[in-house]
Parts: sequence; structure tokens; C-alpha cells
Amino acid sequence: MMIPIVSIVGRTDSGKTTFIEKLIPALRDLGYRVATLKHDAHGFDIDKEGKDTWRHAQAGAEAVIISSPKKYALIRKTGRERTIEELAQLVSDGVDLILTEGYKAGPMPKVEVYRPEVHPEMLCRPGEGLLAIVSTVKLESEVPCFGIDDAAGVAALIEERLIKARDAGGVELYVNGKAVPMKPFVQDFVRGTVLGMLSALRGVEAVGSLVLRIERNDRSG
Amino acid sequence: MMIPIVSIVGRTDSGKTTFIEKLIPALRDLGYRVATLKHDAHGFDIDKEGKDTWRHAQAGAEAVIISSPKKYALIRKTGRERTIEELAQLVSDGVDLILTEGYKAGPMPKVEVYRPEVHPEMLCRPGEGLLAIVSTVKLESEVPCFGIDDAAGVAALIEERLIKARDAGGVELYVNGKAVPMKPFVQDFVRGTVLGMLSALRGVEAVGSLVLRIERNDRSG
Repeated sequence: MMIPIVSIVGRTDSGKTTFIEKLIPALRDLGYRVATLKHDAHGFDIDKEGKDTWRHAQAGAEAVIISSPKKYALIRKTGRERTIEELAQLVSDGVDLILTEGYKAGPMPKVEVYRPEVHPEMLCRPGEGLLAIVSTVKLESEVPCFGIDDAAGVAALIEERLIKARDAGGVELYVNGKAVPMKPFVQDFVRGTVLGMLSALRGVEAVGSLVLRIERNDRSG
Repeated sequence: MMIPIVSIVGRTDSGKTTFIEKLIPALRDLGYRVATLKHDAHGFDIDKEGKDTWRHAQAGAEAVIISSPKKYALIRKTGRERTIEELAQLVSDGVDLILTEGYKAGPMPKVEVYRPEVHPEMLCRPGEGLLAIVSTVKLESEVPCFGIDDAAGVAALIEERLIKARDAGGVELYVNGKAVPMKPFVQDFVRGTVLGMLSALRGVEAVGSLVLRIERNDRSG
């Protein structure tokens, strides 16, 4: 099942990062594990010159991974910007929700951080998937409006609207890197067939999660 | 199909990173895309204090991703050290080979960088999966021995022994995060059944790669 994704959007200097710093602990207080996703149009420079991983990348590695007992990091060169779906797959295991900073153009539900004293006009217009507004002023709005520090209120809304709405389990299919939506009965059919077929294999007993990957170099079949 | 993995091992100051810096371009010259994996027992500190991604992680995010048109980076907190198989899955798309720096204890084929002038004794013993030795001295050995700068020779050996030996396509299965090996005829059966079942779905036409993910919260069925 695709992890729920919420985009925290707003104009420059509206305080998106500051609000996310409050929203993450508020979501954790409700028991959820959060990942964040940020876009950088100009490229970023996260590794330190001279480190072994930096030297690997300079030598031409497409990807470098550094792993330790408590965390790992992956830096990956890409020929094109990865889609949010592709990036979400990277953290699909062990995360309950993804917050994006920015990504206003995406199809995800959005929370706009709005400070009219910085920019009088809001960024989002009606119909652009606005879930809530966080603002320094009280607004008349069709969507719920929270105070600029009310991360707990926004966390409760996200829980209600996005997390609790999820199913008890799901089937995801990606073909050539793109998600293929399946109706619930098709998901049930695929799940039943695959788990049934694989149940006879050694090593496949109590399936909690399953990932099946098929690569075909010959596409004629 | 699991990506081939080769571990570049050796004692401290034997020149592992320096050799990897030569081996990556030598493999690229043969047309292969390379990822690297390094272990850091003491933890690492890759992000810069004060950056938005750093602030997200400090606030309690399990994972932070930053994405740009040319690359992305993921930093992920983990409760335990991830296995090499799990880390390899992160780069399974678009990479032909993974080089690990270190990971001597793993089951992967190994190339030892050996400088007897620094440490007289080799790190690997017979039977520990040694594929080749790279050394400043000429050795009598059961495995191929290359000069300390002969990255082209090692790249050709890796191509011959590990990359060309791969099939034209493969089926990988991970249950609860662990790889489940399948014999070729079982792979063929699974591939045929899944592709046949899914061929009727809209969006599934010429399958080059396929990823199917099943999560079950109810394990009774």
C-alpha cells in the first residue's frame, strides 16, 4: 500500500521547515513514523569532500551507500528527477507517513503555511488539494484553519483523514517503474494467487511483507 | 536478479579506497554502472547542521530524502544494521554491479588489496571466497594475482566471473525483508504465472521490469 503523503507548502519564508519541525514530533506523539522529502532544484551537496563515499562518487559510482548500525545513507545519481512515487518506495518499509516540503504541483493533499505579513496572497487556490491551512491570522476558509503553532491539530487531522483511512494491508504493483493502480478485488485476486503459488516454497511461511521483482530482457514473451 | 556484489577487502591502510577509485572507471570503461557500499561501525555524519534535511532528522524523522534533477539522497535511521541484501535492493534498478569496501565477513566474492610492506599477513585465508589478490608484490597463489594498479585486469575478471555469468533476466523474492532463493524452473513458473495473471490489467503491457509488493497485517490467511 502506498504510504500516505502530505505536502507542506507555502511561499518563501512562510516557515515551512519550522512548521515541519513541530509537526514531526506531534505525529510521533500519535505513534507514527515519519519520513520527509524535500526538492532541491539547484542540486545539493550532501557529502563531505575527501570522505571515502565522496571519493567513490567522484570516481564515477552511480550510487554510494554508507551503512552503520543506527542508520544508512544513499546518494544516487539519476538521469532524470525521480517521481514522488519512486522516492516513496525507498522508505515504504517502516514508515507510516511522508511529509514533503514543497512539491506544490504534485497530486498529494497539501497543508499551506500562510503568513500574510510576509506574502499577502496564499500559494494554493481552491481545488488544488488543500487539506488545511496553518496561519498567523484567523481565516474564513472552506478547509480547516489552524494556528501557526498548532502542529497537534494538524497531526490529528492527518491521522483522521489519511492514516486511519488506509486498509489493513495492500498490494502494490510497479511496472517499468510506474505504479499500476488495482481495484480492491484485483488486489485480493493477485494477493491470493501469489501467496498461494509461493506457499510451497521453502522459506515462505508466515508472510508479513512480500516483494517480488521480475526483470525481463526479452520482452517478446 | 540479485546484482553481483564484489567486496574489496584488506587490512587498514592497504589502499582499498584508492584501488576502488581505479576500479570504478575500469568497470565503466567496460560499460557497467557501479554502486559502492561502505560500512561505518561508528556511525557517520553526512548531513550538514542547519540544513532543512538536517532539521527534519533532528525533529525526529525516520528518513529524510532530498531530490534534485540529477541526484537524490536518502538518510535513514534503522533499528539494526541493514543486511547487504537489503541495501543492494535500494540500488537494484540501473546498476550492474556493487562494490563493497570492507564487508570481509559477508558471503560475497572478495578481492584483497595486499601490501605486505604495511601488514605482512593477508586478511583472507583460503576458503573465504577470495576471487583475486591485488598486491605490490608478485605472489604464488591459487587465485589470480594482479599488480596494485591493475584495475583493468580486475575489472575484466569481474566481468568474466560475475557479470557475464548472469542470466538474461531473473525473478527475486523477498519475504519479510529476506531473500528467498528460487531454482531456475521455479523462477520460470513464478514469472509465467504472475505475468500471465497481470497481463489483463490496464497499464501492464510490455513488461521490462515488475515489482510486486504485498503487505499483510493479518497473517492468518
